[in-house]
Amino acid sequence: MPNGTLGKQKTHLIAFMPSGKRGRFPHGTPVLEAARLLGVDIDSVCGGRGICGRCQVDMTVGRFSKHGVTSRENSLSPINEVEQKYDGRRKLKKGRRLSCQAQLLGDAVIDVPATSQVHKQVVVKQADDRKIEMDPAIRLHFVQVLEPDMHNPTGDFERLCAALKQQWDLDDLECDIRTLQSLQKNLRKGNWNVTVAVHRGTRITKIWPGFNSQAYGIAVDVGSTTIAMHLCDLSTGAVIASAGMMNPQIRYGEDLMSRVSYVMMNPGGELLLTEAVRGGINDLIAEVTKQAKVDPDDILNAVFVGNPIMHHLLLGIDPTELGGAPFALATNTGMIVWASEVGMISNPDCRAYFLPCIAGHVGADTAAVILSEAPYLQEQMTLIIDVGTNAEIVLGNNERLLAASSPTGPAFEGAQISCGQRAAAGAIERVRIDPVTLEPRFKVIGSDLWSNEEGFEEATNKIGVTGICGSGIIEVIAEMYLSGILSSDGVIDGTMAARSPRIVADGRTFSYVIREGENEIKIYQTDVRAIQLAKAALYAGAKLLMDKLGLEKVERIQLTGAFGSHIDTKYAMVLGMIPDCDLQEVQAVGNAAGIGARIALLNNSARDEIENLVKTVEKIETAVEPMFQQYFVDAMAIPHKTAPSTELAKVVTLPAPKVLSDRGAEGGRRRRRRERTAVAD
Amino acid sequence: MPNGTLGKQKTHLIAFMPSGKRGRFPHGTPVLEAARLLGVDIDSVCGGRGICGRCQVDMTVGRFSKHGVTSRENSLSPINEVEQKYDGRRKLKKGRRLSCQAQLLGDAVIDVPATSQVHKQVVVKQADDRKIEMDPAIRLHFVQVLEPDMHNPTGDFERLCAALKQQWDLDDLECDIRTLQSLQKNLRKGNWNVTVAVHRGTRITKIWPGFNSQAYGIAVDVGSTTIAMHLCDLSTGAVIASAGMMNPQIRYGEDLMSRVSYVMMNPGGELLLTEAVRGGINDLIAEVTKQAKVDPDDILNAVFVGNPIMHHLLLGIDPTELGGAPFALATNTGMIVWASEVGMISNPDCRAYFLPCIAGHVGADTAAVILSEAPYLQEQMTLIIDVGTNAEIVLGNNERLLAASSPTGPAFEGAQISCGQRAAAGAIERVRIDPVTLEPRFKVIGSDLWSNEEGFEEATNKIGVTGICGSGIIEVIAEMYLSGILSSDGVIDGTMAARSPRIVADGRTFSYVIREGENEIKIYQTDVRAIQLAKAALYAGAKLLMDKLGLEKVERIQLTGAFGSHIDTKYAMVLGMIPDCDLQEVQAVGNAAGIGARIALLNNSARDEIENLVKTVEKIETAVEPMFQQYFVDAMAIPHKTAPSTELAKVVTLPAPKVLSDRGAEGGRRRRRRERTAVAD
Repeated sequence: MPNGTLGKQKTHLIAFMPSGKRGRFPHGTPVLEAARLLGVDIDSVCGGRGICGRCQVDMTVGRFSKHGVTSRENSLSPINEVEQKYDGRRKLKKGRRLSCQAQLLGDAVIDVPATSQVHKQVVVKQADDRKIEMDPAIRLHFVQVLEPDMHNPTGDFERLCAALKQQWDLDDLECDIRTLQSLQKNLRKGNWNVTVAVHRGTRITKIWPGFNSQAYGIAVDVGSTTIAMHLCDLSTGAVIASAGMMNPQIRYGEDLMSRVSYVMMNPGGELLLTEAVRGGINDLIAEVTKQAKVDPDDILNAVFVGNPIMHHLLLGIDPTELGGAPFALATNTGMIVWASEVGMISNPDCRAYFLPCIAGHVGADTAAVILSEAPYLQEQMTLIIDVGTNAEIVLGNNERLLAASSPTGPAFEGAQISCGQRAAAGAIERVRIDPVTLEPRFKVIGSDLWSNEEGFEEATNKIGVTGICGSGIIEVIAEMYLSGILSSDGVIDGTMAARSPRIVADGRTFSYVIREGENEIKIYQTDVRAIQLAKAALYAGAKLLMDKLGLEKVERIQLTGAFGSHIDTKYAMVLGMIPDCDLQEVQAVGNAAGIGARIALLNNSARDEIENLVKTVEKIETAVEPMFQQYFVDAMAIPHKTAPSTELAKVVTLPAPKVLSDRGAEGGRRRRRRERTAVAD
Repeated sequence: MPNGTLGKQKTHLIAFMPSGKRGRFPHGTPVLEAARLLGVDIDSVCGGRGICGRCQVDMTVGRFSKHGVTSRENSLSPINEVEQKYDGRRKLKKGRRLSCQAQLLGDAVIDVPATSQVHKQVVVKQADDRKIEMDPAIRLHFVQVLEPDMHNPTGDFERLCAALKQQWDLDDLECDIRTLQSLQKNLRKGNWNVTVAVHRGTRITKIWPGFNSQAYGIAVDVGSTTIAMHLCDLSTGAVIASAGMMNPQIRYGEDLMSRVSYVMMNPGGELLLTEAVRGGINDLIAEVTKQAKVDPDDILNAVFVGNPIMHHLLLGIDPTELGGAPFALATNTGMIVWASEVGMISNPDCRAYFLPCIAGHVGADTAAVILSEAPYLQEQMTLIIDVGTNAEIVLGNNERLLAASSPTGPAFEGAQISCGQRAAAGAIERVRIDPVTLEPRFKVIGSDLWSNEEGFEEATNKIGVTGICGSGIIEVIAEMYLSGILSSDGVIDGTMAARSPRIVADGRTFSYVIREGENEIKIYQTDVRAIQLAKAALYAGAKLLMDKLGLEKVERIQLTGAFGSHIDTKYAMVLGMIPDCDLQEVQAVGNAAGIGARIALLNNSARDEIENLVKTVEKIETAVEPMFQQYFVDAMAIPHKTAPSTELAKVVTLPAPKVLSDRGAEGGRRRRRRERTAVAD
């Protein structure tokens, strides 16, 4: 056998896969110890006591000439009693060993499965297989504590710390008073064995008697319309439950500005808004913990993202300053607070991390989007748009990053649209118009059939066809334009009424009927105007950022946000919401803010990364940019008054330009008035 | 004029008294700036804006050959408008200048009065003129903050921090969420000028709009019987209000052990005890702030000392473990918690510091006593005894320090004594017995007359003579011994009944009548036994520590504690409470624990000092020391069975030894039973 000797001791060669790290260790060395000494990443909560089962490895038998190792069945000590007990309790996969128990008796090649790594890779986004490394802020450590000794009196806490130093090399630990209050009982209940949760290597936040291997975290995206929560297992990174709800603040105002107005007009109103959003979050905690059968007290970490007003209200900060120029944030740094400080029903010592806000209109949600989409790691010049009542716009690559927000208003979400509604069952979400007959067909949420397909009426009988949601509005207006019903400057062409009964006079303007009957659904001229205003604001913001970088074109566009991720990117470009771009490179990327929150939950150092990054982001305030108004007016046209649609024309037949009036510009003036009002306070 | 030039600039010599620091500065340099550059300690809250008046100095005119400076009237710029305004508002003493305004125009000698120093010396104890240097954990800083700028959006907090860095060189400041919640309003209310309170140079704990120069702290001694609080001005160090009260926990048990028993027998009882003591503290805060007309919200720092059980209960930690061997503390380190975490009605972000406990029976009060009496700075071998229901005993000097506690029981405080009562109006506190007639005379609290003086009955008519308090008990028993009524082994000598009607039979034993009549006050044999048990425990504890250091004698004895500071030291030695010592070196030093708390409040680094020190204190657990029982039994005799009373005999004529029975030993057996009960749980 190719055994070496170290001094007088017999030693063996061990190689770990997939890292390839190898070294020589004395006969009998536990595999986990060899891994530690070589810096091989193997997880352990129990510290090598054969309880947690996190350190499992496979031995690979055979000759590995590349590593100079011949690995044999008997290179590891036989399965011992501790492993048998573990197997009886929690089943060891065939061939698997607990590396804390298996001893090196010969040269060996050891395979460390991904699930046994602390810093394992976890997929956070199915779409593009985005992986992040597990590195949560909370780590669990099982520890044996010395009993008190009257002859050498020390505190239980100090003996716990000494044990954590000795067994886990953790130094200078602090603890919360609540932890201290439960410490003595837990130590005795666990017969001087406890598991502690340590936050960022510095602070003990929970103590369980005996062994515990489960800790949980929540990632929360607090939108002005909806709140979405994921409950994650902090060891595997898996999402084990998700829930969402309407933001209960909606009763104080549909959009952000109306909520801020509520606060301004009702002294103490900010407390009600804070209470509402915190209550909603607690309802979601109750829901996800019930789903996953998890004790809320085991939630030890939380990450919150949201726009500046949600961020401030959740922290109990009056958002009044964000309601008017100069839109001053209370703070633009990431924050860690006690869950109890924001009224969470999780463990009161749970640490809640708030991603940093970027500017008065560009929030922690945008920071999360940046973290998720990581444009700062790309060479491609990427435009990211988070479409909501405010659109947050990020533009840049690995050299520079710019951010701005643009007040699109709630039209994209179905508000301010006569037949508009939220994306719910019964809402029209897809629309096609036959360019010859001008007849529409559509799909509603809750059914896979087009309206002209057989069985549609039966299928939608129960849910009904109740209105049109954001993505449906985008599509119908784009289709109206493509079929010639709508002119480039957004006027419904009354002359077309001669061609189709779907175009009907409506006072001095015309409308387009999508569905006839009792619950008539039609698009009025005012609806078109509302969408024009919204899309022009969005486009103008993007154009402004492109200007700052001297760009005529962007290489990639990503749409995100609850609404942004449901848009058909082609129609978004037909409508001129976004600049002309190779359609292949335009993607709806899902809820990037929520993914960013999960990344910050599972990977502690990502927080430092984004905090450093947002300091370097160049913030553009659209309201004070002299060119914004002009860009806005030009963008009222469909797709655009002046910008070429070279890329779009490759995939869509665009109608010949047709201008019917100059009322688009009127909309621009209206918009300016609205802005002055917002800025006035 | 003896002006030098620095490059092309005219410079002048300036010398600061009393430090003697001197240097040469350009013409026109503000005196405060010269002081800063030379490291001369001059206070300032407003940062040189002529608002706070803390930087006042005197110019001394004349020739100072020692410093090589001739100081003239016109060596400083004339009084300017800012100084005139300050003088109009708050009056400048004649000749005083604001050093931030006065500019150097010639050579000058500047006197910095003590009140203008940050690190001024403050007297904390009138008795021995003990001074400490002001160095509070809370510092105030007036600061001008930049207004928000839309073109360069940053948070208000970040701009505040930038201003604090630039104007006060404070770095990496954090803040409480509550501070953040009020930040924006305060900045605007103060027109971008605010004063911030910074805790230990790291954390902003309060923000006032505009200028503020007042911050307060409380030092609290939480005894099992009484709670005492001092409200201090954190800039001058002065005590501006004091208040005390009975510990409201008394309704759950007179002494510590009965309260712990209450907790053990009543689930949730610890919460009631915590609530009681916190409620008492809040009542005292209300009282001292009312007295001094201070807003409780301006209390930004607190220091708490108390025995381990009070310490734990105040922190909300169940004290059950302290009720039985091995008497494990939850923690033996100093702690800083939020006031809100211990339910204080002060500013919720007030930081509350708890001095470290030393061992299961030796608490943060003893740490405070050590800080106050500073035996660790002395060469004299000093014995410090904090007399209470538990006596804490510290012995040592600048080389070694030992600490122990001894369970004296509540006899010294008047409990378990038939006519005993607390030290209150009407309680007998001084007693003398004529050795010939055996007639007593006494004094009661609330009157300066002896009972045999004319007018005594009239003077005490209203308050009555209601009982006998601790110091009275010590004296009457010591006097009974000196007059021969009591034998060395503590038996009231029945044969003396023949000599005086004051000695009366009382079943099989005798008692001594101090006051006849309706409210008869007398000392029973059982009272003597109770005091013997208490004093023997105390003596035995001290003896044990002396043993550990190989000492036959101590050089100095200091008695402290609410009771300890009222004892006549001579009688304490006659009774044999303390070892024989030169009576000149035996002092009652007042409430040393309270003084220690004040030191920790006013001098931040004293906290580190005591925390490091208590780690080196050698802890002796009397309950497990094999010699304790023997020492205890020997100490039952008055003054002592075997130890010589050489020093005592120099000042008191001791009676010839007389032994009447061996019932003292019986008491010893009784005590052992009690201890076993306490240890049993």
